[in-house]
Amino acid sequence: MDNIVKKEDTVVLIDESLNKYIINVNGKTDKYKGVGVFDPSILIGNNYGKQIQIGSKKFWILIPSLLDKLECLKRRAQIILPRDIAQIIINCSIEPGNIVLEAGIGSGSLTIALANFVSPNGKVISYDIREDFIKHAIKNIKMAKVENTVETKIKDVTLGIDEKELDAIIFDIPNPWDAVIHAWKSLKVGGYLCSYSPLVSQMEKTVKEIKKYNFIEVKSSENIQRKMVVSEQGTRPSFQMLGHTGYITFARKLL
Amino acid sequence: MDNIVKKEDTVVLIDESLNKYIINVNGKTDKYKGVGVFDPSILIGNNYGKQIQIGSKKFWILIPSLLDKLECLKRRAQIILPRDIAQIIINCSIEPGNIVLEAGIGSGSLTIALANFVSPNGKVISYDIREDFIKHAIKNIKMAKVENTVETKIKDVTLGIDEKELDAIIFDIPNPWDAVIHAWKSLKVGGYLCSYSPLVSQMEKTVKEIKKYNFIEVKSSENIQRKMVVSEQGTRPSFQMLGHTGYITFARKLL
Amino acid sequence: MDNIVKKEDTVVLIDESLNKYIINVNGKTDKYKGVGVFDPSILIGNNYGKQIQIGSKKFWILIPSLLDKLECLKRRAQIILPRDIAQIIINCSIEPGNIVLEAGIGSGSLTIALANFVSPNGKVISYDIREDFIKHAIKNIKMAKVENTVETKIKDVTLGIDEKELDAIIFDIPNPWDAVIHAWKSLKVGGYLCSYSPLVSQMEKTVKEIKKYNFIEVKSSENIQRKMVVSEQGTRPSFQMLGHTGYITFARKLL
Amino acid sequence: MDNIVKKEDTVVLIDESLNKYIINVNGKTDKYKGVGVFDPSILIGNNYGKQIQIGSKKFWILIPSLLDKLECLKRRAQIILPRDIAQIIINCSIEPGNIVLEAGIGSGSLTIALANFVSPNGKVISYDIREDFIKHAIKNIKMAKVENTVETKIKDVTLGIDEKELDAIIFDIPNPWDAVIHAWKSLKVGGYLCSYSPLVSQMEKTVKEIKKYNFIEVKSSENIQRKMVVSEQGTRPSFQMLGHTGYITFARKLL
Repeated sequence: MDNIVKKEDTVVLIDESLNKYIINVNGKTDKYKGVGVFDPSILIGNNYGKQIQIGSKKFWILIPSLLDKLECLKRRAQIILPRDIAQIIINCSIEPGNIVLEAGIGSGSLTIALANFVSPNGKVISYDIREDFIKHAIKNIKMAKVENTVETKIKDVTLGIDEKELDAIIFDIPNPWDAVIHAWKSLKVGGYLCSYSPLVSQMEKTVKEIKKYNFIEVKSSENIQRKMVVSEQGTRPSFQMLGHTGYITFARKLL
Repeated sequence: MDNIVKKEDTVVLIDESLNKYIINVNGKTDKYKGVGVFDPSILIGNNYGKQIQIGSKKFWILIPSLLDKLECLKRRAQIILPRDIAQIIINCSIEPGNIVLEAGIGSGSLTIALANFVSPNGKVISYDIREDFIKHAIKNIKMAKVENTVETKIKDVTLGIDEKELDAIIFDIPNPWDAVIHAWKSLKVGGYLCSYSPLVSQMEKTVKEIKKYNFIEVKSSENIQRKMVVSEQGTRPSFQMLGHTGYITFARKLL
Repeated sequence: MDNIVKKEDTVVLIDESLNKYIINVNGKTDKYKGVGVFDPSILIGNNYGKQIQIGSKKFWILIPSLLDKLECLKRRAQIILPRDIAQIIINCSIEPGNIVLEAGIGSGSLTIALANFVSPNGKVISYDIREDFIKHAIKNIKMAKVENTVETKIKDVTLGIDEKELDAIIFDIPNPWDAVIHAWKSLKVGGYLCSYSPLVSQMEKTVKEIKKYNFIEVKSSENIQRKMVVSEQGTRPSFQMLGHTGYITFARKLL
Repeated sequence: MDNIVKKEDTVVLIDESLNKYIINVNGKTDKYKGVGVFDPSILIGNNYGKQIQIGSKKFWILIPSLLDKLECLKRRAQIILPRDIAQIIINCSIEPGNIVLEAGIGSGSLTIALANFVSPNGKVISYDIREDFIKHAIKNIKMAKVENTVETKIKDVTLGIDEKELDAIIFDIPNPWDAVIHAWKSLKVGGYLCSYSPLVSQMEKTVKEIKKYNFIEVKSSENIQRKMVVSEQGTRPSFQMLGHTGYITFARKLL
């Protein structure tokens, strides 16, 4: 039965505050953050979609979705949020089978999403200059079970890109303008360059550098998401709101 | 050579105002909107990524990307814009191989994007009550070359859904609340319901209906995109801006 | 000398975190919130614009501005923020000498701002159904030294308005639609009706009621303010942001 | 009777598309833009608030409000919109009786609003380096009947400010950073400096210059206004939206 937790499964536990914890069912008895000390094998035989009691808390058990994986990342560097990942995926026209390069790897959030969307036959190559970041991200990538689609390299993207004919190249580095020339050389014709930066000056300098090369459809935007609150009294936008994430720049290589 | 236009290709022509036209190279001499009267076979042998002259205008030739396809749709109904499609894809955790239902089909923009992301082994089933909309959308779907991944049905989704164990169900209909019960029955455990609506009251009524069933992670938001203008004088947000597209609601089925 | 604190002054003390405290110099030694126990008369003789030490903290001393007064209000009810007050003042075309009615009084923030802008010859009449709110607001109004320009009434505005030929009427009540008829009767020709509401449905219902009467220029909007952060590293919008305050509706009476 | 148009009145005519035209009743028969050829004296004796026929169009007649005046300005330079004027008024804590300087004068929109709010005893001094701009603005200022409260000077504010002890100084010039030192010298203690700029770099450079002087409460923000559409079908934000006006920076002088 597909709807029953089995020994080899990885599950997501969701508590009533909607905090999520990804758990390997065949892990050993241990202290699990947010859940407490427990033996994951007790999950076996439960129905997916049911709420169960573990210690003093209740959890729903589900098969982890892409969003669960993104929301359960152990963060080290600042991550790119799902709302911005979404824009990157669409505006780079990511398709299954694509070969995509990103730099830097951060905590692996974009890496995991890209790997999801280029599967089963594509590949994500991820550069970072810091080995510790790569090691940390690989843990998240394995948790998300996309390690077969990802290749990591300890490498400074501003010094060059090994790969050629790439479908898309995405920068999340402090100085993307220094890598634009390498992106131009390594993209296939019609391929997409993307750069994500929190600061206006980073975006500005990158756009100006991009315009020196034969790119078209150069565009930058910010994406603002506002939650709506629906309650008994009525409906209104949420008071809580994240005012800024980053500017995302796109461009497309010509010959 | 992959970089040369061949007889059996479909290409996108992009003019200097960034208007795009998707053309079948083996089409006959005809009047092509935005291009003029010409014989598409003259494109054969040109390099992708080059700019060529057709009549009095210049065009870059590229292999159509997902975004090109979305931007070249012949519109009949109001379409869901790429920015919102992006949020739907991520927040429904769409993965290659997924079986996804949408209703209604509109002009097929979401259909094409979904087909792209569930490929090669997934499927998009699309309901609409109007045969003319389906016929129109199928033209766009064929232009996008994803017809093998899409199944259409002339069917009112508020009367029921044939399929079961769906990974995601997405509504773009005037009265989504009337179809929530059917979505609940037809989603797999952990599957995502999504509804896109321009009006506050549609969103509100749908959220209230969703809360009657065993869904979690019910959330609604609007996504606002603002372009940035980088020029010699300096950088600023664009004066032109689309103030609203729609509210997008998500929910996830429990047992 | 105008620039020296005198015995009869009221001053604002601003600490280094930009918290503000309005203090009567001739008040007695007491515990002052945010400042600590001190004798306000020690302020006498200091230069305005200087930073002085009181206990363990440092404070700048200034003559209270309108904004200082608004930011130092003791809050009881939810207040209308300066950004929304600003829109109300301009869109009601408030001029010195105007006679303006507001209901309800809240904590008196709008009352104080209106009193500032109709001075020296105008008047603000403020209705509230709750005597405790009025008493609380009067304390703030006296702190702001505009009590001569304000008249308060314990009165339910949905039951009628005593005054006639008013320049503007502003509602900040849960059910503004019930008072629209009274506003229409009591406004002068060309006078402005304004209603401030956090919920979509309140705004919607009020607009629909307004449209039953002979008003023109009926408009509703929300006003979103986003801070910009300028630092050594660069400039970006602030991450912190208030996602919503309220919808403000305006209309203008015809004959 | 106050409610009847008299010979010496200035009125606003509002057509059914809400276009507005300010007319001197004792003007001569002429072609009036948006109204056509007519003799303004025909307006005498009509009730304010009534709709009358002039030629083939219908117009409501009202006594011009501040907002009418701002919306009827003849534009030459880019104007500061009422939404931003509102923030300037509140955040500079403008009070009746204030002495305020602005540079440059533009088309006089901010000038007129400032004159309204400092009346009856205050004054607005307005610098501009271009005599033609001043001449043009004076026409608008006279139309708004605030000429007694405004003094204009053909003068470059970056070369110095004649006045001292000003309550507020507001810059709407391309290079506000060059005038910050003069603002510091000419403001009273506790007075407000404000600068309005469309470009990020202008705002950034101005904030950095301000931080060199003894100012507190330095803050920059943008103000975004979104209209709401209430119709029979339901309520939603407007699709039409102005994406950007300018960044507004405020600071307050210490000793």
